[in-house]
Amino acid sequence: MINKQQLTIVKIGGDIVDYDELLTSFYTHFKAISGPAIIIHGGGNKASTLQEQLGYVPVKVDGRRVTDEATLEVVTMVYAGLLNKKLVAGLQAKGKNTLGLSGADGDAVRAHKREVKTVDYGFVGDIDSVNVSFINDLLSDGKVPVFSAITHDGNGQLLNTNADTLAAKIGVAMSSLYNVQLFYCFTKPGVLEDVNNDESIVTRIDKGLYKEMKTAGQIFEGMIPKLDTAFEALDQGVMRVHLGEVDVLSDNTIKHTTLCL
Amino acid sequence: MINKQQLTIVKIGGDIVDYDELLTSFYTHFKAISGPAIIIHGGGNKASTLQEQLGYVPVKVDGRRVTDEATLEVVTMVYAGLLNKKLVAGLQAKGKNTLGLSGADGDAVRAHKREVKTVDYGFVGDIDSVNVSFINDLLSDGKVPVFSAITHDGNGQLLNTNADTLAAKIGVAMSSLYNVQLFYCFTKPGVLEDVNNDESIVTRIDKGLYKEMKTAGQIFEGMIPKLDTAFEALDQGVMRVHLGEVDVLSDNTIKHTTLCL
Repeated sequence: MINKQQLTIVKIGGDIVDYDELLTSFYTHFKAISGPAIIIHGGGNKASTLQEQLGYVPVKVDGRRVTDEATLEVVTMVYAGLLNKKLVAGLQAKGKNTLGLSGADGDAVRAHKREVKTVDYGFVGDIDSVNVSFINDLLSDGKVPVFSAITHDGNGQLLNTNADTLAAKIGVAMSSLYNVQLFYCFTKPGVLEDVNNDESIVTRIDKGLYKEMKTAGQIFEGMIPKLDTAFEALDQGVMRVHLGEVDVLSDNTIKHTTLCL
Repeated sequence: MINKQQLTIVKIGGDIVDYDELLTSFYTHFKAISGPAIIIHGGGNKASTLQEQLGYVPVKVDGRRVTDEATLEVVTMVYAGLLNKKLVAGLQAKGKNTLGLSGADGDAVRAHKREVKTVDYGFVGDIDSVNVSFINDLLSDGKVPVFSAITHDGNGQLLNTNADTLAAKIGVAMSSLYNVQLFYCFTKPGVLEDVNNDESIVTRIDKGLYKEMKTAGQIFEGMIPKLDTAFEALDQGVMRVHLGEVDVLSDNTIKHTTLCL
């Protein structure tokens, strides 16, 4: 365990990808990371905007996008095309040798179409496997893999996958070879006691406190699946999970939230 | 020279990418290729369709798309996103370990924005360099690189690049390590004496005959830049250049056009 090299995995949210200013700030702080690193990016509002421009009505259930065939086309275009290549080219300009990937590329991440229970999410993928040796080859070669959250089922079907979950699954899988630290970066400095007060950062949170804060209504909506996923990653072998703004990537003394078992 | 391994590079035109039936046929014939291979795909009509849906008017000069910022977004989405991932996932299902790339990924292909002379083509890239060692690493690792014709300038700018030219430039660059055979596949069985008669295939064409056929008006429009590019590739080190339908990939006795010096 002690001999494993550190691997930094950064998931950047759609709220960052949407704004060039935040992306530029991300590039600067990401550049300061030494050692191997992987990026997973969210989708932002561009997919919804494009859907609306095309006259489709985006449908979400519990914050997750229902993905019919037309929606799958849109998210494949926006996530795996526009945003992924923008990030890859942007980081190449900063001297990071990035390589953009979907789960289909190099058979990196396989998933299966989510079974219909109460909701039919359409072409949404639940992850089955991560190709550790392929990703490790890229890292060993000095590449920074940049994942969009599009996966495939091995039978030619692309699937829309949650980016937080993809980051966690890649983190857990890569833990067999590395000490993984996983950052969930968004536009808040971490878990907040009071969502309206950015100073009220909860610097350490364990499952007990998480449960209390949910009960008290301090943690709600999208933060619940995000934290569930983050705690799962920690349970399953990821060494450290942090939540906060991008500046924490270059300076871990900046206030943010660290998850504890 | 004689010791070099053969590398097959296949450029498939937009007319193939647009139709699932033709793509399926491509998969079947491509699968029969033994040894290392690279695919470069064209754009097809999807980018123009999407532009029209979004209320933009596609502008072409001499068959080449003028690429303003909105158009660059569209082609990045369609070429590097939708079509690239569809092809990658489709070929993964056939057992080929494909990896989708733009020129920005792994710094594979650098270009510069075309200088404005008589026409301002906007964000159109003319290729400066091909990263032979990166592409060779992928091939040595058993991967099939699948290129969309989006490149970058190394300063964060993505650029729209002609797919025929990209195929030729990759072919020439890879000729330092391999005996390259380059196929331009489209929906015609090759260069035709009479464009309306698919039986009138010119099986061998050299520059003299090419010139004669241009003068006689038998070769015209989009075939001219395609053949210019193809002859350049042959001049600059590619061993063999063939033009025809996808079935020639699995059986080179099928009638098609071969370029001769």
